[in-house]
Amino acid sequence: MLIVMRADATDEQIERACAAVRDAGLAPHPIPGKSRVAIGITGNTGPVDPGMFSGLPGVVEVIRVTRPFKLTNREMKPDDTIVRVGNVEVGGPEIVVIAGPCSVETRDQTIHAAQSARRLGAHVLRGGAFKPRTSPYAFQGLGPEALRILDEAREATGLPVVSEVVSTDDVPLMERHVDVLQIGARNMQNYALLKRVGASRKPVLLKRGMSATLEEFLLAAEYVITHGNRNVILCERGIRAFSDYSRFTLDISIVPELKRITHLPVIVDPSHAAGKRDLVIPLARAAIAAGADGVMVEIHDDPKRALSDAAQALTVPMFAEMMEELKIIVPAVRRGRTVTA
Amino acid sequence: MLIVMRADATDEQIERACAAVRDAGLAPHPIPGKSRVAIGITGNTGPVDPGMFSGLPGVVEVIRVTRPFKLTNREMKPDDTIVRVGNVEVGGPEIVVIAGPCSVETRDQTIHAAQSARRLGAHVLRGGAFKPRTSPYAFQGLGPEALRILDEAREATGLPVVSEVVSTDDVPLMERHVDVLQIGARNMQNYALLKRVGASRKPVLLKRGMSATLEEFLLAAEYVITHGNRNVILCERGIRAFSDYSRFTLDISIVPELKRITHLPVIVDPSHAAGKRDLVIPLARAAIAAGADGVMVEIHDDPKRALSDAAQALTVPMFAEMMEELKIIVPAVRRGRTVTA
Amino acid sequence: MLIVMRADATDEQIERACAAVRDAGLAPHPIPGKSRVAIGITGNTGPVDPGMFSGLPGVVEVIRVTRPFKLTNREMKPDDTIVRVGNVEVGGPEIVVIAGPCSVETRDQTIHAAQSARRLGAHVLRGGAFKPRTSPYAFQGLGPEALRILDEAREATGLPVVSEVVSTDDVPLMERHVDVLQIGARNMQNYALLKRVGASRKPVLLKRGMSATLEEFLLAAEYVITHGNRNVILCERGIRAFSDYSRFTLDISIVPELKRITHLPVIVDPSHAAGKRDLVIPLARAAIAAGADGVMVEIHDDPKRALSDAAQALTVPMFAEMMEELKIIVPAVRRGRTVTA
Amino acid sequence: MLIVMRADATDEQIERACAAVRDAGLAPHPIPGKSRVAIGITGNTGPVDPGMFSGLPGVVEVIRVTRPFKLTNREMKPDDTIVRVGNVEVGGPEIVVIAGPCSVETRDQTIHAAQSARRLGAHVLRGGAFKPRTSPYAFQGLGPEALRILDEAREATGLPVVSEVVSTDDVPLMERHVDVLQIGARNMQNYALLKRVGASRKPVLLKRGMSATLEEFLLAAEYVITHGNRNVILCERGIRAFSDYSRFTLDISIVPELKRITHLPVIVDPSHAAGKRDLVIPLARAAIAAGADGVMVEIHDDPKRALSDAAQALTVPMFAEMMEELKIIVPAVRRGRTVTA
Repeated sequence: MLIVMRADATDEQIERACAAVRDAGLAPHPIPGKSRVAIGITGNTGPVDPGMFSGLPGVVEVIRVTRPFKLTNREMKPDDTIVRVGNVEVGGPEIVVIAGPCSVETRDQTIHAAQSARRLGAHVLRGGAFKPRTSPYAFQGLGPEALRILDEAREATGLPVVSEVVSTDDVPLMERHVDVLQIGARNMQNYALLKRVGASRKPVLLKRGMSATLEEFLLAAEYVITHGNRNVILCERGIRAFSDYSRFTLDISIVPELKRITHLPVIVDPSHAAGKRDLVIPLARAAIAAGADGVMVEIHDDPKRALSDAAQALTVPMFAEMMEELKIIVPAVRRGRTVTA
Repeated sequence: MLIVMRADATDEQIERACAAVRDAGLAPHPIPGKSRVAIGITGNTGPVDPGMFSGLPGVVEVIRVTRPFKLTNREMKPDDTIVRVGNVEVGGPEIVVIAGPCSVETRDQTIHAAQSARRLGAHVLRGGAFKPRTSPYAFQGLGPEALRILDEAREATGLPVVSEVVSTDDVPLMERHVDVLQIGARNMQNYALLKRVGASRKPVLLKRGMSATLEEFLLAAEYVITHGNRNVILCERGIRAFSDYSRFTLDISIVPELKRITHLPVIVDPSHAAGKRDLVIPLARAAIAAGADGVMVEIHDDPKRALSDAAQALTVPMFAEMMEELKIIVPAVRRGRTVTA
Repeated sequence: MLIVMRADATDEQIERACAAVRDAGLAPHPIPGKSRVAIGITGNTGPVDPGMFSGLPGVVEVIRVTRPFKLTNREMKPDDTIVRVGNVEVGGPEIVVIAGPCSVETRDQTIHAAQSARRLGAHVLRGGAFKPRTSPYAFQGLGPEALRILDEAREATGLPVVSEVVSTDDVPLMERHVDVLQIGARNMQNYALLKRVGASRKPVLLKRGMSATLEEFLLAAEYVITHGNRNVILCERGIRAFSDYSRFTLDISIVPELKRITHLPVIVDPSHAAGKRDLVIPLARAAIAAGADGVMVEIHDDPKRALSDAAQALTVPMFAEMMEELKIIVPAVRRGRTVTA
Repeated sequence: MLIVMRADATDEQIERACAAVRDAGLAPHPIPGKSRVAIGITGNTGPVDPGMFSGLPGVVEVIRVTRPFKLTNREMKPDDTIVRVGNVEVGGPEIVVIAGPCSVETRDQTIHAAQSARRLGAHVLRGGAFKPRTSPYAFQGLGPEALRILDEAREATGLPVVSEVVSTDDVPLMERHVDVLQIGARNMQNYALLKRVGASRKPVLLKRGMSATLEEFLLAAEYVITHGNRNVILCERGIRAFSDYSRFTLDISIVPELKRITHLPVIVDPSHAAGKRDLVIPLARAAIAAGADGVMVEIHDDPKRALSDAAQALTVPMFAEMMEELKIIVPAVRRGRTVTA
């Protein structure tokens, strides 16, 4: 940490700041500059609250130097983490495609979507059983019945299943039925839920909160890991900015930045970012081109009958087209990846 | 809802869109315009998903007309909701000041802060027992011990207590100790928690999520109300924008807009918005001037020793100054409000 | 500046970074920490581009310490700058109210608005002659004819006039007719225009760009000042965030932060921030309560006939109400200010 | 346009709103709904200000239906506009790569960069002569001397040249030296400059403002076109959001949306969006994968000696790598495009 003093700070103020550093069990290192003094701080073993020093007389600002995330940091673990989901490796040499309906609505719709997904090369099936909906008046998911349908879809296709968990109480039930526990964007800082899935043996797909910084995103992953579960997949799904044409703003740049900074696998959900199907395929292509380890898309046999997020589901022919295009792009990212297993 | 057709949409496409509306059990009303046709939709008793129509051939966009929030809407209930907290009325003629430490750290610190708050005219005591912290390595609150200390502070001062609940499991415990259940910004869309506090008899102080729109904020309140609890206090605490000088951006405009649109009481938390104490008093003044029903501020006898959010806590003399200034402003808002009971 | 090295940086990498600092004519100061080394830099007389060092092997990031703005910095000039506009002092003990129509549309409308403004206590008349409109199809202002009407309004009321200049070519003409040259939000980083008004003897009212950081805002002021014109009034008018209910998001917090950091006067334009008249009065009250040196509002005798920004103009009775309320608030800000001269 | 009335609006209020519509020379069409009445408006030949109706008694909101942009709208001109720059076609079947230094600093640096660009397959040379810098203390470009160096570089390589124009006064000089006039992000709403380049015969590369909506971006292009110049190339370069790791947030989704909505060519500048070179190649790949007509990147033989934006310039070997990777991606976008001419 670095304390920046005012240009006109007195020697006494500087000494007082140094004393405050020592009081906190740390070591102050004054660095005299042309126009002002800064004080470097060493000796901290954990994070130090900048607020301890920012209010002292003569202090302009306090700058944090060490990054607060540790277990997710590639500096600490340089090699990629590979998360196994059934026979699928997320974060390994191949890209991974997760596809399925937004919500499980009926047995037929789900089995059909799963079979289409399987046939066209998807690796994992998605499908919402418990839906976190902005409005209490919107369809909230079929719940336990959806989980039984997902079991059947897994059996019919061999695809492992990812589904969102919205409550700590639901975790044991979800663990019996799904292969990956998804934490939605709205729950990225629901720490009770993060701690609970941290105690699970199932991998966790953690979606970025819609206003989470990169640091907050990694600290949310760190909650899961510090509670015992190292199998975390990060998922960018769009941030809230001022767009007048898409639901959210896909922050494509975070993909290469995360790949550089953390060893965890990174996937992208273009469906929720866009909110309309016309944009999903171009964004899926962009995600893979930017270096993502995979994409998660919504598909529906008959999107206009979908009970949730109808506008953004790909039709089956569109999904087929996307898969073809991703295959072409993968070699550009130079990791020997291929779309088909 | 209104379906806007392309300028070059064919008669067949228009008829097809009308048919889709009829299929959904609704009534289409084509409105021919100079350059294009729009189709008004009537007959909906609940919310209709715009996505049902946005993907049809010839459709440019689908515009929602009716607002999705109902129970919070002042159109439905024109008179102000007053939430009673002990002897205090939030949303009534007087403004309400909630003050106390960010976290309950020790018995002495809390009792002293409560006594200062009481003496200077605060109406409600705040104090965190369970803290939702961005980093798993940061101080997470004293938990049950903090609740016992808050009981003691209530007894010593007579002030009712508000404290944040971060998990459905903690609700019964919290209900026994606190007078108002606070839902933090990070949990504004934790629907499991909203439903659970909706089933409580204790009033709920609902903080706005840091990227929540006005509509999402009111729909979160609607979750609480539809589950049975009408005593909801809304709290603006800053949104995430691009500020290079404050932690969040206090969205002061939402105060008068909420007062216009909803009958629920609206308060402001300037401490978390600012992230540094220099800004807290001006923002508290601005909040009351904008029409807020109250403010919630952090105070600390010795801020530089605080374990969380040290930089933003007011000292006791600063709190006294703030109270004096708020008293001057209240009459400008013309509701016969006064700061002191 | 501070160079933060990777935890695993080699001694050679650290030495190479130090050498790069010396090559740039600066002095490196390595600070060994528990987990990594940081290198303090001193000796810079002007701003140094962090990019010179951020790409070196072993470097994690480069942190700038000294603030880049100088002439606007209160550290350099502690006492408030007072900008004289006719007999009015902006930034002095009294708050200043600027009022008038968005655009000058007709002689009658402008003279009436000016007389109402004067009668109710406004200090300066505003009125657009050249309008920067988002759409090329929207009303662009009356131009030179508007300036003649403004002259007449000044004569009729004695109020000095502020009007926006949108082009370097128009500056000489504007200088002959108006008392303050306004730079609009869309031109805050139009450096050719900033330099040109920097060479003028007329005071400049500089509006914050809708996505400008505090630092960028002050650097824009610095452009004007370095070109010779120290009479700059800063104006917050709302930033672009994700609001679903107002045109822009008034960043009220920047008012006290600017007052703390710079010696220049700071006013607020609530009309453009809100985009609808219901919010203007509460936001004007909030602005003064937060410590602004004044407000600038749009008024119109018959708002629904206005050719631009009709929705946000105050009626004359609303303006009268606002003036009454501001008078009550001023003493809370404790500077002996009053609304009336 | 659509006027939405309150649920409890009286018949008289509805009639009054209809009368206001008729007064404006338009035709009102009341649409009775279950809970409220909406009034469709037809007959408008140009844009109508919603503010004319939004303040009427009983009105909840006024919704605009027709899009305000016309000449850029693909509905009006379905086939792609191809902008010719020398022998290069922007917006045609091949993607276009624009490369060169951020600023022209010396003759040697510029000629070397141009030759590297040419050799590796770039189609257009970029290079700043007049630099719009946030700080008045930063390097502002070599000006006319830079233009002579660019002439020489064009002669040496045959590459056409794009360079930014920052002032209306500079347009005639720039027109004599460069092949494309660039309007920077900070000047996207500098309407005097847009009108001036609209009167030029040189194509215009228009960068999106950092907080411009899609609609505002197209309306800026519309300014250029309505003043006579149809050769406009749109360029996404990152928006301002809350990123803690990149300078701006590249809004990749706008690429396919613009391609769908407008006939103008769309390119992407990943260098300014990222602000650091590690991200430039992944973002360039993402841009092409998303459907952009080209990319514009900064290259420098010795980036750490660059006088501006040093951190984001690609080295020549990195640029070579990028070109190879883009070639692989192009076929995925299925337009028979290739990187090399």
